[in-house]
Amino acid sequence: MKEYLYKQLSVAPDSKLTNLSRVIYIFILLSIITIVLESEPSISFGNESTFLTINYIFGFIFLIEYICRLYAVGLNPEYSGFAGRIKYIFSFYAIIDLISFAPFLLIPTASESFLLRVFRVLRLFSLLKTSKHATGLILIGNVIRDKLYELMFAIMLTFGIIFISAVCLYLAEGEIQPEAFGSIPRSLWWATVTLTTIGYGDMVPVTAIGKILTILITVASIGIVAIPTGILAAGFSEALSELKKGKDK
Amino acid sequence: MKEYLYKQLSVAPDSKLTNLSRVIYIFILLSIITIVLESEPSISFGNESTFLTINYIFGFIFLIEYICRLYAVGLNPEYSGFAGRIKYIFSFYAIIDLISFAPFLLIPTASESFLLRVFRVLRLFSLLKTSKHATGLILIGNVIRDKLYELMFAIMLTFGIIFISAVCLYLAEGEIQPEAFGSIPRSLWWATVTLTTIGYGDMVPVTAIGKILTILITVASIGIVAIPTGILAAGFSEALSELKKGKDK
Amino acid sequence: MKEYLYKQLSVAPDSKLTNLSRVIYIFILLSIITIVLESEPSISFGNESTFLTINYIFGFIFLIEYICRLYAVGLNPEYSGFAGRIKYIFSFYAIIDLISFAPFLLIPTASESFLLRVFRVLRLFSLLKTSKHATGLILIGNVIRDKLYELMFAIMLTFGIIFISAVCLYLAEGEIQPEAFGSIPRSLWWATVTLTTIGYGDMVPVTAIGKILTILITVASIGIVAIPTGILAAGFSEALSELKKGKDK
Amino acid sequence: MKEYLYKQLSVAPDSKLTNLSRVIYIFILLSIITIVLESEPSISFGNESTFLTINYIFGFIFLIEYICRLYAVGLNPEYSGFAGRIKYIFSFYAIIDLISFAPFLLIPTASESFLLRVFRVLRLFSLLKTSKHATGLILIGNVIRDKLYELMFAIMLTFGIIFISAVCLYLAEGEIQPEAFGSIPRSLWWATVTLTTIGYGDMVPVTAIGKILTILITVASIGIVAIPTGILAAGFSEALSELKKGKDK
Repeated sequence: MKEYLYKQLSVAPDSKLTNLSRVIYIFILLSIITIVLESEPSISFGNESTFLTINYIFGFIFLIEYICRLYAVGLNPEYSGFAGRIKYIFSFYAIIDLISFAPFLLIPTASESFLLRVFRVLRLFSLLKTSKHATGLILIGNVIRDKLYELMFAIMLTFGIIFISAVCLYLAEGEIQPEAFGSIPRSLWWATVTLTTIGYGDMVPVTAIGKILTILITVASIGIVAIPTGILAAGFSEALSELKKGKDK
Repeated sequence: MKEYLYKQLSVAPDSKLTNLSRVIYIFILLSIITIVLESEPSISFGNESTFLTINYIFGFIFLIEYICRLYAVGLNPEYSGFAGRIKYIFSFYAIIDLISFAPFLLIPTASESFLLRVFRVLRLFSLLKTSKHATGLILIGNVIRDKLYELMFAIMLTFGIIFISAVCLYLAEGEIQPEAFGSIPRSLWWATVTLTTIGYGDMVPVTAIGKILTILITVASIGIVAIPTGILAAGFSEALSELKKGKDK
Repeated sequence: MKEYLYKQLSVAPDSKLTNLSRVIYIFILLSIITIVLESEPSISFGNESTFLTINYIFGFIFLIEYICRLYAVGLNPEYSGFAGRIKYIFSFYAIIDLISFAPFLLIPTASESFLLRVFRVLRLFSLLKTSKHATGLILIGNVIRDKLYELMFAIMLTFGIIFISAVCLYLAEGEIQPEAFGSIPRSLWWATVTLTTIGYGDMVPVTAIGKILTILITVASIGIVAIPTGILAAGFSEALSELKKGKDK
Repeated sequence: MKEYLYKQLSVAPDSKLTNLSRVIYIFILLSIITIVLESEPSISFGNESTFLTINYIFGFIFLIEYICRLYAVGLNPEYSGFAGRIKYIFSFYAIIDLISFAPFLLIPTASESFLLRVFRVLRLFSLLKTSKHATGLILIGNVIRDKLYELMFAIMLTFGIIFISAVCLYLAEGEIQPEAFGSIPRSLWWATVTLTTIGYGDMVPVTAIGKILTILITVASIGIVAIPTGILAAGFSEALSELKKGKDK
């Protein structure tokens, strides 16, 4: 029984999620969806007690899971015995597990503390980390590590161009639109929104010189700002095709 | 006569559209253009009777086409005889054909039901599906199937980044701008519009912390959000050049 | 003298612009800049007579050029003799030359007709077409011709996705925002602005269903809409590197 | 002592920054951050004397650095002796060094002259230029030089498309929205903002013909406008992988 529980809570040899892990995974996903919906006033208003009950149920389920894990983990030589259990309780993922449900059971008002519930998102990662689904996350991690120097340089270049653009517009429009361009930090906001081509339109140059500067800056430097995008897309595409080749063999 | 009709309503051996198919194709396109124009009040207002007449004419044409198909389909061994005709009537494309014109002839007021007329767009596909023009659609279908794992992973990653960005801004600006960032679903709208670089500007962070977060998030993650774009563009470009090579041989 | 003029008005054997051609080229550029500046009321207001004089001078210069060309073209066997001159006058580029200055000399009020002056932009192309600078334009023309099938397909796909997105939002928000989504043509504007990631923000979905649809549509299909961009960029980059290789040999 | 100072102020043989250079580098960065923060009224208001003091301290530090450099530079054969020192004082980087601090020590009110302080950004480059961190900047410089013809052509093409789009919208909406499209320069602003997909939304076509033109222009030409981005991204990615290959050998 203990052994079955231990196996079900661990990862299968073929690195698939076990049936129990899948059920827990679904519960975590459902509890995150509950948090998302609860945060929306037009949904939660008038249904506070319903959400409180749902949160209690999830808290109770995660409590049971926590106890089961604590009980079964003894089979792992690293955490066997009483000392091992104490060691497990203070392990990184066990603390995340605890934080993600304990407050809601102990203090009902803690239910309002959104930040604590965000830990459930971390739980998703802690479950995923050992499964085969993690290969994708490892892959993107590898791409970022592989191309780190290029990416760092390209991102620094991006920030450099954003900074210079911000200084240009600060000098050009700082006095005419003090609210939008009256300081470098304010101009930085405009420069980021413009050079990433988001273009909210909350801050727009209005003078002739400001507009001419913007035209020259954007046409000349959007290409440079898009370099990290190109590096990441190319690196990721490459890594995935290599992974595929490796699988085909 | 029956045989000629059957050939004209089918696809030619060289997978070209027959002359009759082309005429029907043009009628479907015209009927879709009519629907588009009719939906615009400044065009349809005062011309309701004209549009009603046009719709009746299209309905009648599609009725004749339907009867012809029903008559000629007997030459197809699968649908020969009375039982075969009944089978044909309940086949997928025959039902689409029927829905796309029948309501407008039977109940004039059904003409207002826009949704039923959308089926005519499906008819376009049903006609195209067997012609050589379909190779393009098959191609894009193949690219999506080929790169499905990569695309799914990249799109999930995109949604993950959008979700985390939404949570960040919900925590940063939720209380200052409850209308825009007062819940995670509301923040999700902002996060999607920002990270896809659409940037409507209907919801814009206004606090210093919100803006700094947005600058860091956008510069760091627009590259990741653009990965599906890169995968699709590369895959499509590759598939097209292979298709060309195959044709050149 | 006539021969010198003919040579100067033609293209040099090494396909460089001759000195006279360069002078004319600069005059055309200056006359276009004049047109651009004149169109701006804050610049032209109060300076109407100045601009009229400048336009007269440009018109006179282009008249002299036209007469010189007509005189010198006789050395071209195709246009020699009186009949050849008549033939030249009715040739495509001679008509463009004539339209680009004649109205401003004959009827002063024609100066206000902007459209006629746009012909001067065409003159730029007519001058460029034979020079070595044209290789770039020929190149991009070749890339577009080479990838025509792919581009046409990708652009049709783009319009297809834009159309379907427009229909979705028309059904979702047509009744709530009739001004923005009250008909398919209106929704088409929104769909184009959104899927090209321009995002003006003049029309924005406001309902939950409209926003959810937009999130799903944009994340899934921005990749597809960006395919023509990828094809063009790749094709152009390829063609340029091949051109370089050819030159290096 | 003099030799130690000279070595510390120069670049190490392995082109790493020396310890002293790092300290100076950090001081320049801090002084730039101070300038950025000081420009923001909500931060500087009431703290003017604090910022004045900080600026004095930075000015004093940079004065000491300047004197040290002037003293130690004598070991460089090019700048040895009195004449060499004079030559050094009028060298490009020494002038930048001087401008970046002298005015703030001599005239306190010069502290308000933002432009002079921008020279400190130049100092960052002057320090970086000899270090190994400069390889990245040299690399991007090389990529731009390598692809100069392609980039220039693509950027000219971009401006050409922007110009033609601006003329189209000027003709279509110039009379209906004189503020936004009433002249070609005004339309140029709209065309740049639209074709770079920034889309502020401060100027939006409102007529049917203007919107149809915009739809056709954007779908057809966003691909062409994105060519410089593609060229830069590809060239940069290529150059970085070659650099890596060279290092691996």
